Amino acid sequence: MSQKVRAAVLVEPGRIELQEFDMPKLGKGAAIAKMVMSGVCGTDKHSFKGESVQNKGTKNEIRIPYPIIQGHENVLIIEEIDDIGARTLEYDGSTLKPGDRVTMCPDVVCGECWYCKNMPNYPWCEKMLFSYGNMRSCNDGNHLYGGFSEYIYIEPHSRLYKIPDGLPDRVAVLTEVICVTWTLDKAKEFNSFSLEGFNFNDTIVVQGVGPLGLAHVIKARMMGAGKIIVTDVSDYRLGLAKEFGADISINSKNTTEDERLDLVMRETRGRGADLVIECVGHPSVVPEGLRMLRKAGMYIEPGNFVDAGSVPINIHEICAKNLRIVGMCNHAHNAYLPCMEMMERSLGWFPWEKFVTHIYPLNQAEDAIKKSMAEDSMKVVIAANL
Amino acid sequence: MSQKVRAAVLVEPGRIELQEFDMPKLGKGAAIAKMVMSGVCGTDKHSFKGESVQNKGTKNEIRIPYPIIQGHENVLIIEEIDDIGARTLEYDGSTLKPGDRVTMCPDVVCGECWYCKNMPNYPWCEKMLFSYGNMRSCNDGNHLYGGFSEYIYIEPHSRLYKIPDGLPDRVAVLTEVICVTWTLDKAKEFNSFSLEGFNFNDTIVVQGVGPLGLAHVIKARMMGAGKIIVTDVSDYRLGLAKEFGADISINSKNTTEDERLDLVMRETRGRGADLVIECVGHPSVVPEGLRMLRKAGMYIEPGNFVDAGSVPINIHEICAKNLRIVGMCNHAHNAYLPCMEMMERSLGWFPWEKFVTHIYPLNQAEDAIKKSMAEDSMKVVIAANL
Amino acid sequence: MSQKVRAAVLVEPGRIELQEFDMPKLGKGAAIAKMVMSGVCGTDKHSFKGESVQNKGTKNEIRIPYPIIQGHENVLIIEEIDDIGARTLEYDGSTLKPGDRVTMCPDVVCGECWYCKNMPNYPWCEKMLFSYGNMRSCNDGNHLYGGFSEYIYIEPHSRLYKIPDGLPDRVAVLTEVICVTWTLDKAKEFNSFSLEGFNFNDTIVVQGVGPLGLAHVIKARMMGAGKIIVTDVSDYRLGLAKEFGADISINSKNTTEDERLDLVMRETRGRGADLVIECVGHPSVVPEGLRMLRKAGMYIEPGNFVDAGSVPINIHEICAKNLRIVGMCNHAHNAYLPCMEMMERSLGWFPWEKFVTHIYPLNQAEDAIKKSMAEDSMKVVIAANL
Amino acid sequence: MSQKVRAAVLVEPGRIELQEFDMPKLGKGAAIAKMVMSGVCGTDKHSFKGESVQNKGTKNEIRIPYPIIQGHENVLIIEEIDDIGARTLEYDGSTLKPGDRVTMCPDVVCGECWYCKNMPNYPWCEKMLFSYGNMRSCNDGNHLYGGFSEYIYIEPHSRLYKIPDGLPDRVAVLTEVICVTWTLDKAKEFNSFSLEGFNFNDTIVVQGVGPLGLAHVIKARMMGAGKIIVTDVSDYRLGLAKEFGADISINSKNTTEDERLDLVMRETRGRGADLVIECVGHPSVVPEGLRMLRKAGMYIEPGNFVDAGSVPINIHEICAKNLRIVGMCNHAHNAYLPCMEMMERSLGWFPWEKFVTHIYPLNQAEDAIKKSMAEDSMKVVIAANL
Repeated sequence: MSQKVRAAVLVEPGRIELQEFDMPKLGKGAAIAKMVMSGVCGTDKHSFKGESVQNKGTKNEIRIPYPIIQGHENVLIIEEIDDIGARTLEYDGSTLKPGDRVTMCPDVVCGECWYCKNMPNYPWCEKMLFSYGNMRSCNDGNHLYGGFSEYIYIEPHSRLYKIPDGLPDRVAVLTEVICVTWTLDKAKEFNSFSLEGFNFNDTIVVQGVGPLGLAHVIKARMMGAGKIIVTDVSDYRLGLAKEFGADISINSKNTTEDERLDLVMRETRGRGADLVIECVGHPSVVPEGLRMLRKAGMYIEPGNFVDAGSVPINIHEICAKNLRIVGMCNHAHNAYLPCMEMMERSLGWFPWEKFVTHIYPLNQAEDAIKKSMAEDSMKVVIAANL
Repeated sequence: MSQKVRAAVLVEPGRIELQEFDMPKLGKGAAIAKMVMSGVCGTDKHSFKGESVQNKGTKNEIRIPYPIIQGHENVLIIEEIDDIGARTLEYDGSTLKPGDRVTMCPDVVCGECWYCKNMPNYPWCEKMLFSYGNMRSCNDGNHLYGGFSEYIYIEPHSRLYKIPDGLPDRVAVLTEVICVTWTLDKAKEFNSFSLEGFNFNDTIVVQGVGPLGLAHVIKARMMGAGKIIVTDVSDYRLGLAKEFGADISINSKNTTEDERLDLVMRETRGRGADLVIECVGHPSVVPEGLRMLRKAGMYIEPGNFVDAGSVPINIHEICAKNLRIVGMCNHAHNAYLPCMEMMERSLGWFPWEKFVTHIYPLNQAEDAIKKSMAEDSMKVVIAANL
Repeated sequence: MSQKVRAAVLVEPGRIELQEFDMPKLGKGAAIAKMVMSGVCGTDKHSFKGESVQNKGTKNEIRIPYPIIQGHENVLIIEEIDDIGARTLEYDGSTLKPGDRVTMCPDVVCGECWYCKNMPNYPWCEKMLFSYGNMRSCNDGNHLYGGFSEYIYIEPHSRLYKIPDGLPDRVAVLTEVICVTWTLDKAKEFNSFSLEGFNFNDTIVVQGVGPLGLAHVIKARMMGAGKIIVTDVSDYRLGLAKEFGADISINSKNTTEDERLDLVMRETRGRGADLVIECVGHPSVVPEGLRMLRKAGMYIEPGNFVDAGSVPINIHEICAKNLRIVGMCNHAHNAYLPCMEMMERSLGWFPWEKFVTHIYPLNQAEDAIKKSMAEDSMKVVIAANL
Repeated sequence: MSQKVRAAVLVEPGRIELQEFDMPKLGKGAAIAKMVMSGVCGTDKHSFKGESVQNKGTKNEIRIPYPIIQGHENVLIIEEIDDIGARTLEYDGSTLKPGDRVTMCPDVVCGECWYCKNMPNYPWCEKMLFSYGNMRSCNDGNHLYGGFSEYIYIEPHSRLYKIPDGLPDRVAVLTEVICVTWTLDKAKEFNSFSLEGFNFNDTIVVQGVGPLGLAHVIKARMMGAGKIIVTDVSDYRLGLAKEFGADISINSKNTTEDERLDLVMRETRGRGADLVIECVGHPSVVPEGLRMLRKAGMYIEPGNFVDAGSVPINIHEICAKNLRIVGMCNHAHNAYLPCMEMMERSLGWFPWEKFVTHIYPLNQAEDAIKKSMAEDSMKVVIAANL
């Protein structure tokens, strides 16, 4: 009789059920891994709420194929792996074996389209095979495609990354969200002494300091940011952002847009911020963010990962202020190892252990998602052993 | 009795009068120059129509201070110049003397603010002294601050550029609009083999091929563009664009947005354009332009120089497609000499003599502006001697 | 009885023999192609002369494994191809069939090392499988690994590129050498309005205008170069360079280093060149090239592909002049299609048909190589049908 | 009777005398400032030893015009300043008054040559007016042009920078040497996900950790460096480098080149360093540094500020490894304020107070210079009040 695997299934928007699946048989080039810890991402919150359109305007536009097993920010231990998978699944060249602790990239790309060939470090594939925890129904294939489960099935062409021994689970589980801050590496590319993009000692505003915003605070600090200003509606989150290196925080609930603009101007000699990073995930904050920028300032947009509609933008202001607006979704394939090494290196510099604020068992997955939407949480994770 | 100078004054929106001024006395560090030819720019059309808000959202926000003498795309001959001006007014180090033929930068910057010190090649000054043909009333100072006049008064700190002898007046008069295509030099900066920004053989869409759009067609061709697709409502302009190197043209009057998108996709293996350049000057065309782009494509926005309002933008599409939107107003101070040298070098490659389609005498300035707004014109200029 | 294939074998330095091989059997994922035309490259001349160390200082350091079949600048027609090869060998996604005309990248990379994963557009592989016409003996494997042969055997993981119909064989055969000018795309990446790297209207010196230097003249012109100055010891080659767009030529035989430096300074207002590109292929010209540069000028080094020893360099001058020296070997995988499309597009702009100056039959391969080393030749090719 | 000013004069190589000068009269646009602290720079050591050729190969090539007052890393207090100077001498726009504490840029540029106009953030002027503490004899003009003096005379067009109140003198005195690390900002410009230039988590080797090398260790850490490896002949200096964040140190006295190369390879998975920065100041270390690099790695050369001759370089290795070599002398005008703000911000992150190891009174200037050349010192300074 085959082994049973329990998983938290998002049956439809708003409803999660604990279901049992048969343990799949290991295929060629594949692996099966045991879940240690799986973070709740902003995308998971959107899917739970039924906001399910992603990649709009591209060939990969999808609607979530409910039912799904969510969870793509995973710390895993290899349980079974075949010979081919052992040599090919790890991105940075390690040969894997059972017992190895790994994290993973959610996106599985085709490797052959124009994007995969010409911009191969990015998951901009136009024939995206699928995405763990998000873009594949648990009715499909080997079922176990998300981290809110006792086991996860790793298909060939997935990308795993061995976790350095010195990195605790509760920090390693942040790898994916820290990787999303390749936005800032990107912004560095655009810089020059003409001072566009992200330069040493720049003033940076992060709009929204949930986990994505907090990750940007940390990475900005690591890369030479000057003053970091954060906005949010939660004092709890603003407080955490300051513990991680933000200099100035302002609660958007208690202030008007003009007050926030005034603050940014005062802190930048009347000039405006060099960079503003949108981590709220809603279009409505974009006009305010653009107004916060100095001339030739850069607006980075990783937050609106899910379609939440349009907002009126004054195009003349973009022209007159020479603004640069840079959309960024996902992250680079090759960001994982550098991010993990830097997290390990900086265990003494940042209070990394405070980033994960709540840990739930698998059978309380719905509570976990709800808590992740509350103001008094930062990163919420689901863990196998509490 | 002092010499009289005739000038075409835009007294108020829609009304131009020929007025007489006293010839000003030459001040320290200044020059007086005779007008040879002065082009009608898009900005002039806006001012004529009463669309008069510029630099909105910046400290330089202005409304046109009617009455003004328009005209900032000037070919001039130095009439008088004092010793200091002779050494300091020419940007590239030439010593000027009466009889020298020059063009000029419209913007006069302070040289001391943060932008002037830190990004000194751009006219992003936050205390902009004034701008010829646009931002200074003819009731003010030495009055003659525009090219639609027999003479123009050059204040200290202005920037003049000696015109190479081989460059005919009717080509030299295009220098300023060709300089605005530093947009493409900028886009080149953003490129890399990850194929962002402007790369060799890229497919480029130019939305709108009035003079600014046509200048972009030419510069793109000079810098290694691949396929160039142009849109406009005027068959006359589309035809000219093809004579200057555009590969494919489509009239927006006779086609739907879907038809234009289909064309761009067909011509790019279903991927979308690498660059789209907005040269229509109206926000309404922006959403279509964004849809024309491939992932990580770049949208360049030099057209909305004057405030023409807002348009709804879907922020998720910017994120999901990793778009780069780059506002660009004005041009770089140091673009003039390179542009003039390249225009001279390419006299045999492009039909430069066809760019200026209509020449009017000074006393028909209003007719000139009206013609510049007609579909059957490209660059319209006002000239001293016909 | 199996079909025989004739090939020109470089048995040892200085000696080429026509030998017969059995036609290989088509393997899985592979193809067999008929040679139409194969160019003689600088590398071939070095190998012929016994200068056989390549990639020194890297893990791919090799000595030529004589005997070899040379020829890696190939125009080919697919003769046989299996189902897998038909779908995977073409880089830009075309499905191949017998009769298709293709060119190819000489380098076959592993696809799995750090370089292949992190900088995948470049052939910087540290486990380079092999390189056609150069790094693999004809005693090995399927023998036919060079273009100086009636047929060539295409192993899996090779990269073929379908040739546009409008591109004549004698232009298509130049694809690889034109691709090497990705040096200039690279130099564009380094630019900014602070004027480093390759900028619009820059003055460029090309040291040596054999085929590689001529390719740089053409590409520089396509990408917005200003004044192009060329040096060489052959008046024949200098003359051709001017036909392809060089502005000024100087014969190094009849002039001293000081005279050449004076020329460059005179032509650049006493400042020095913006870019110097080394296409002689010998270290001895490097110090002169560095002296030709202005401050923050860029020296591009694609020429010393084969080890020809050291030269004394004054390091203080590199520091004091803020020079940028950029080594470049090979070219980017994704440069082929853009280069072919631009060659086709520019058939009317450049006298492309004059680039190939001599065509030899296969049984005169040794004469072909000797002619390629003579001053009165540009690109020499070997062709199947004369 | 006029006030007397005592200064340490380098009369000729190897000989410093304490001399008296008359206090100069304040000129238009000028200032007179009291010396608080003045650092001994590598250049000062070279001048003391008679190694006096700078800017070789440029129009600014000079030999030190002995006698000179050395000292260009200055912390000063404004003593007298006229109205014009008060408004124009401070670079970042502060209005100065007596009592203000400032640091200064040593270079005084013309502001009008091609470099000053086109690359205005850099002191690459081809008509350099002079340089404090170095390029101007104390027989000349207002005499007091160096910091090893009780007072210093600030000529018009000099650039002063107000020091933030929170920055102690012994940290503020490091501003100039920290500014020289704009090398790393520059290297950031060259990066991209193709991983050239300086990227997040890169492995960096600093050859030589005197003050310049130590400044690079600190700045690299601030900007997101990964592993930092340092070499030097002094265990004292290597120890300090580790206190400031270097991960691995190796003494070049006790090791062979092969051992050092092996170390670098072991620490980089056999690949080589991403960046090597030459801070020894002698050409002889350059070949080893190039060998330490991975393919497409970058070598940064700020150390050979003074001519110390040539070294044989294998040009093929530069080509085959696609190396990027970037000369850097001086620093950017606009680096001062960002550097000071970041030093202040990081007072709690780095043991800044340990950087200055020795402080001497003005009448022991010769001892100070000798101590700065000893292995058991880092930054040595001369101070007014001990």
